[in-house]
Amino acid sequence: MNWHKTTLEISTHGKGLYDFTETIRTQLRDWNVREGMCYLFIQHTSASMVISENWDPTARADLETFMERLVPERDSWYTHDLEGPDDATSHIRAILTDTSLTVPIDAGKLSLGQWQGIYVFEHRVRPHVRKVLMRVLQVE
Amino acid sequence: MNWHKTTLEISTHGKGLYDFTETIRTQLRDWNVREGMCYLFIQHTSASMVISENWDPTARADLETFMERLVPERDSWYTHDLEGPDDATSHIRAILTDTSLTVPIDAGKLSLGQWQGIYVFEHRVRPHVRKVLMRVLQVE
Amino acid sequence: MNWHKTTLEISTHGKGLYDFTETIRTQLRDWNVREGMCYLFIQHTSASMVISENWDPTARADLETFMERLVPERDSWYTHDLEGPDDATSHIRAILTDTSLTVPIDAGKLSLGQWQGIYVFEHRVRPHVRKVLMRVLQVE
Repeated sequence: MNWHKTTLEISTHGKGLYDFTETIRTQLRDWNVREGMCYLFIQHTSASMVISENWDPTARADLETFMERLVPERDSWYTHDLEGPDDATSHIRAILTDTSLTVPIDAGKLSLGQWQGIYVFEHRVRPHVRKVLMRVLQVE
Repeated sequence: MNWHKTTLEISTHGKGLYDFTETIRTQLRDWNVREGMCYLFIQHTSASMVISENWDPTARADLETFMERLVPERDSWYTHDLEGPDDATSHIRAILTDTSLTVPIDAGKLSLGQWQGIYVFEHRVRPHVRKVLMRVLQVE
Repeated sequence: MNWHKTTLEISTHGKGLYDFTETIRTQLRDWNVREGMCYLFIQHTSASMVISENWDPTARADLETFMERLVPERDSWYTHDLEGPDDATSHIRAILTDTSLTVPIDAGKLSLGQWQGIYVFEHRVRPHVRKVLMRVLQVE
């Protein structure tokens, strides 16, 4: 068994979903991994990850709208607002989604379903560069 | 260390929770795994997984009711409805629950707590066969 | 490659977030792990885990308030209340957060972001001792 590691940097420009599936795929090809497990870990508390529908943009638009409605910026009860109105909401939205993901690799490819893509979910208004640690346990 | 893999197929007939803990246990016995880590990955965006209370059916009924209330089909703001009124809600409910799970294996068994079961959470109305990739890193 | 395992016991005294990052760090030093993957699994359905902001206590206070509002104890539709008004809410809150986490280890340390801490999220009113299974795949 073998171990590979890198840090992916995903640039974001405001709230929303950013597909980085292809970045992961390219890295797997570079390492020539046939089979194993891919671990992703985002080092932030105001951005997170999701595996979501990658075909119809309306599916992602609805997910973004849902989060705006479930954790609205304008709620009056937040106490954590040092960095602005997106401060408390960012951390809460991150908690409701994912900080770590594990995805199998088979036949040299991520074993995603036909309609699955891997996204950074940015919860901040301002641009950021988000760090995702990528680790691979290579079995073959 | 050793690597095992299979694809589990879970039949669903409408929205709700489907316990497949026993299917995983049977597979572990077939592979004769004593110790290691079990990885589960569901290849869908309109069904997900949860680890939930497995003793009292009312705990699961309340979870299903909660999701119907939090992400109701009748909301007017959804734009993703090509496949019907359960379309947008399916993807959102999947995001709020789990696509990947990792569970330790000890002494030949899944190390679940006394009241934990592993479930497919179906978010679609129509019947489906859901694919869950099962991978095991065998340490002993 | 090497495998390490232990069970962490986290004492809780009522609802809220309990930081146990330092407990994990101490264990990694004891095992002298330089590089690999750390797996955490909580064996409960009425307590869960989150990776959250660890600097400003208001971020955690807002997360706790959010959960009280999203899954309130006083809702009339719950059917699962054998163990009290925190019964159904505990399981639902656990589902919305995490039962399993995977965190990379590099240079002898957990590779958390600067503001990330690892927490048990207790959803019960009464005191508990919560068991978190800690497993480490040591690569170096």
